Amino acid sequence: MNELHQNSIVIDGLVIARWDRPLFEDMRKGGLTAASCTVSVWEGFQETVANIADMKKLIRENADLVTQVRNVEDVRRAKREGKTGIILSFQNAHACEDQLGYIEAFADMGVRIIQLCYNTQNLVGTGCYERDGGLSGFGREFIAEMNRVGIMVDLSHVGANTSREAILASSKPVCYSHCLPAGLKEHARNKSDEELRFIADRGGFIGVTMFPPFLRRGIHANVMDYVEAIDYTINLVGEDCVGIGTDFTQGYDKGFFDWITHDKGRYRKLTEFGTIQNPEGLRTLGEMPNLTEAMQAAGWKASRIEKVLGANWLRVFGEVWGAA
Amino acid sequence: MNELHQNSIVIDGLVIARWDRPLFEDMRKGGLTAASCTVSVWEGFQETVANIADMKKLIRENADLVTQVRNVEDVRRAKREGKTGIILSFQNAHACEDQLGYIEAFADMGVRIIQLCYNTQNLVGTGCYERDGGLSGFGREFIAEMNRVGIMVDLSHVGANTSREAILASSKPVCYSHCLPAGLKEHARNKSDEELRFIADRGGFIGVTMFPPFLRRGIHANVMDYVEAIDYTINLVGEDCVGIGTDFTQGYDKGFFDWITHDKGRYRKLTEFGTIQNPEGLRTLGEMPNLTEAMQAAGWKASRIEKVLGANWLRVFGEVWGAA
Repeated sequence: MNELHQNSIVIDGLVIARWDRPLFEDMRKGGLTAASCTVSVWEGFQETVANIADMKKLIRENADLVTQVRNVEDVRRAKREGKTGIILSFQNAHACEDQLGYIEAFADMGVRIIQLCYNTQNLVGTGCYERDGGLSGFGREFIAEMNRVGIMVDLSHVGANTSREAILASSKPVCYSHCLPAGLKEHARNKSDEELRFIADRGGFIGVTMFPPFLRRGIHANVMDYVEAIDYTINLVGEDCVGIGTDFTQGYDKGFFDWITHDKGRYRKLTEFGTIQNPEGLRTLGEMPNLTEAMQAAGWKASRIEKVLGANWLRVFGEVWGAA
Repeated sequence: MNELHQNSIVIDGLVIARWDRPLFEDMRKGGLTAASCTVSVWEGFQETVANIADMKKLIRENADLVTQVRNVEDVRRAKREGKTGIILSFQNAHACEDQLGYIEAFADMGVRIIQLCYNTQNLVGTGCYERDGGLSGFGREFIAEMNRVGIMVDLSHVGANTSREAILASSKPVCYSHCLPAGLKEHARNKSDEELRFIADRGGFIGVTMFPPFLRRGIHANVMDYVEAIDYTINLVGEDCVGIGTDFTQGYDKGFFDWITHDKGRYRKLTEFGTIQNPEGLRTLGEMPNLTEAMQAAGWKASRIEKVLGANWLRVFGEVWGAA
């Protein structure tokens, strides 16, 4: 494996894959130190708790490969032990239903990142695939509680108005965990230069994704296109608040994409992705070392590569999650 | 009892009282033919189903006084039998959670009116006590399903933007089941002349309330102030789409008002009502005949009184619920 990659802390800010041992093996092959792993999208409270229990069982059964991450020291421990740290995260506040008290319950279970909305309106705000009236009053209370218990606010699939107001409302850094610049491709999911600067100027964080429908060259992209998108973002906001958030959907079939692209998993169709094929050279998590080599090929200094691969994420996680 | 009152079909478009035998006795004393009775405000699906079961048990145990209304013929039957018909209704779509399928399930249980939002944002739209971004995409699907299964859309506590879009989206008449004209008192819950004309011009219905915080003279009002407010509304939209929706909260204590005035029943305080005291002459449901006498004292023709007391509600219920 590439030496710089092997020595770096590598953190993927968004993976929504089919969780099983082969996937964990591929994470190890890819040299991932930690990954934010989606355990809730459209599910309500009870189903999400069941998803978390399933994930924890899977982590126990594959303790030779993975370990749950609850704080930044757990990430460093994962690195030392040669395992991949699993960060429990949601792509929708819906799992908390109408109960602010569920936020701390999920924090107790180890959830460390919650995206406020997934594509459409919920009690907190509105997603990026419909008209967005902004953050609700409940949404303001929701963010204050996330700040209090140390869960990071994610805004990737959130609408522009709700995002702007959430960035202003949060007392701790927030993130777009997985997004691409609209400057390279116009898309409802991509963020304008102004939006990227707005979050960065307020201490926020940007994880750059490589999800093909949002990439300039779509399914014809290769790993260099991904580096181009990260480069574009760094040129806008600097190299200290940018990381990766691949959005790997490894192992999932059409049924999964049908589910995530319909409101609540079953109602009107919100978007059409077409064929999903990750960039050449980075089709699977196991190929992650190719990303480091592509950054080197693009002439990036080692210090920048280390930051973007994981050091930046680790720093901002520490700021939000607390020291412990 | 006043003869006109006794002979009329009297329908109250909104009662949210503490359901028990003394209340049903008072409904009989007041000569109510039917009343829309709130069985869900902040509750989710399961709790609402339990509320409905409790109400049905109470109806069975007091079958000498009340009977469940599922259609307009049930209202006429209640009149013939000298009972008060109980129409199950919600003041919040929240009970349906994120499941459009729950709407038909509730229709099967006999729910006939659902208010889209209660004061704040939910999955469907936004209430009248916070900034309102309008009807969501899910909200459009929600209304289509309500239209299909014959549940009336209520917009009393709904925000202005969501209301306007819901009025346009619904293929069947919608209502403000309990509201007052902002022309008599400015209040977030009161409706402007423009809003009242907008719903009426599109086949919708207006139930006029007498809830003291929204009345021009507040707790100093008497039954003539209520007649004044109904009169004001009729002067705007005519006498064929106006009825009564008292919003009697009979039997409830401070705990109830604390619950309804906080978002989700427990978070930030949305409004301060102060003392609740219904208009003099109409402090209780049992005094309802005084309303008819006040209308007569105001010089209303019998035909108008009959329409406003219940004939109008009955007609529009038939249009929405279907013939059966």
